[in-house]
Amino acid sequence: MFERIAILAPGLLGASVALAAKARGQARTVSVWARRPETRLQIGGLNWCDSVSDRPADAVKGAELVVVCAPVESIVPLVRECAPGLSPGAIVTDVGSVKSLICRQGRGAVPEGVTFIGSHPMAGSEKTGHEHATENLFDNRACFVTATPDTPPETVDTLARFWHGLGARVATATPEEHDEIVANVSHLPHALAAMLCVHLSERPAKWKALAGNGLRDTTRIASGSPDLWREIFSQNREEVLRALNGVDHQLQLLRSALANGDDWAVRDLLARGKAHRDSLTF
Amino acid sequence: MFERIAILAPGLLGASVALAAKARGQARTVSVWARRPETRLQIGGLNWCDSVSDRPADAVKGAELVVVCAPVESIVPLVRECAPGLSPGAIVTDVGSVKSLICRQGRGAVPEGVTFIGSHPMAGSEKTGHEHATENLFDNRACFVTATPDTPPETVDTLARFWHGLGARVATATPEEHDEIVANVSHLPHALAAMLCVHLSERPAKWKALAGNGLRDTTRIASGSPDLWREIFSQNREEVLRALNGVDHQLQLLRSALANGDDWAVRDLLARGKAHRDSLTF
Repeated sequence: MFERIAILAPGLLGASVALAAKARGQARTVSVWARRPETRLQIGGLNWCDSVSDRPADAVKGAELVVVCAPVESIVPLVRECAPGLSPGAIVTDVGSVKSLICRQGRGAVPEGVTFIGSHPMAGSEKTGHEHATENLFDNRACFVTATPDTPPETVDTLARFWHGLGARVATATPEEHDEIVANVSHLPHALAAMLCVHLSERPAKWKALAGNGLRDTTRIASGSPDLWREIFSQNREEVLRALNGVDHQLQLLRSALANGDDWAVRDLLARGKAHRDSLTF
Repeated sequence: MFERIAILAPGLLGASVALAAKARGQARTVSVWARRPETRLQIGGLNWCDSVSDRPADAVKGAELVVVCAPVESIVPLVRECAPGLSPGAIVTDVGSVKSLICRQGRGAVPEGVTFIGSHPMAGSEKTGHEHATENLFDNRACFVTATPDTPPETVDTLARFWHGLGARVATATPEEHDEIVANVSHLPHALAAMLCVHLSERPAKWKALAGNGLRDTTRIASGSPDLWREIFSQNREEVLRALNGVDHQLQLLRSALANGDDWAVRDLLARGKAHRDSLTF
């Protein structure tokens, strides 16, 4: 249990961290900074928030753990901004969907005696905003903790225990391993869903009412914020391209099988896809 | 209200048609034929079934509407098999996911005085079997009725009213229009979900536990039967290939934008995808 944690830029994820940490005895007090004055006013009255500050460096004072919940490109600037207020021994983490660049720059942005370790809870949805937060958002969700060889193992353990305490299944990986994995299991599905929607947007408008639950589910994530996802794709460009090339290869195989009328090659691809889907655990 | 309808090969869809038709006053009695003797025994004891026959031609006797619910490639053979028992004035329909070939051959398989009209309710799921049937499966789901210029308008109306009575939103289209639409809004999402899973099946097995709700939802339909989907792709080959080419074009645009570091082109594609997704009605 931490005496005090600080949440910077709480949206859906940050507010859920605060709710879960208090409900599950992982943090006694939660201090908060939010960029917009009206959000600070709102959040100040909520029961998961013990104090609100106007400046990031004030919010982190005395916090043993700081969780930066801003969009990907704003994380490192916010770490730099709060750095003067960080207490010796504090752990600074984030919840960004990409890790390599953030971890490299984040480690350089904190003062001596403070440790930056990246986190990525695979939770959230196309909904955003602290008003959608729930204390069980992380239940049984995968959460990456991205250590590097120079990260003190005991701080990695402390952070892993925190996420575990919030209900998550913790996986440790290097930032580079993380980025390769999420390029395939998260960023690639997003790219496919979004490009499917772009394709359909160029077809007749009356088709919009003629879709079933299959299209509904395969495209749900395409409703995510274009700005957040631009940042994610930009920071994970190489791995996303590699993943897109990989799925393109399988799509070419399917197209060849169809064009050749090779129904059994089509069936074999579908059967391999089904076998993998049925083996996934969520 | 029909006095008598016949359901041939009831699985999830056929049993749901029977349940909904009885619950909503669209049919007084339901007669059934199923291929496997053990299924006939099971179904004979269920409250949505009034009589079970060992032969399709017996099951359709006296039925004003016959709904053939077999997999795509078995529909026309089953129409031929039941033809000797069909009553004059009967309407024969099916629930297959492809329509051009089935409607062409189905029209030639029924005797003079009987009308074949294709149907395609966009309901169902990766689950199959009559035991998963529900009377509200068609509520607010799109359902195609595929008439051709030589179909008597009053039989089209009768069939459209039946599906409407089961809760569906009925759309009429030619079989060819239908196949183009579903290639894009149903078969293409299935192909993308399946090839995404094939791609992931070639990645490290430990990644399986590291996926979030996005992957869960985008790939759900990949659990569908490879045999059913092989038949669907085979019968709708040309349109599915055209749809795959269309989404390939958008994926190439995304890859170029990423490779060129053109974040604003990436954002523009994502924003167009989101706008379309947000405009869909389900």
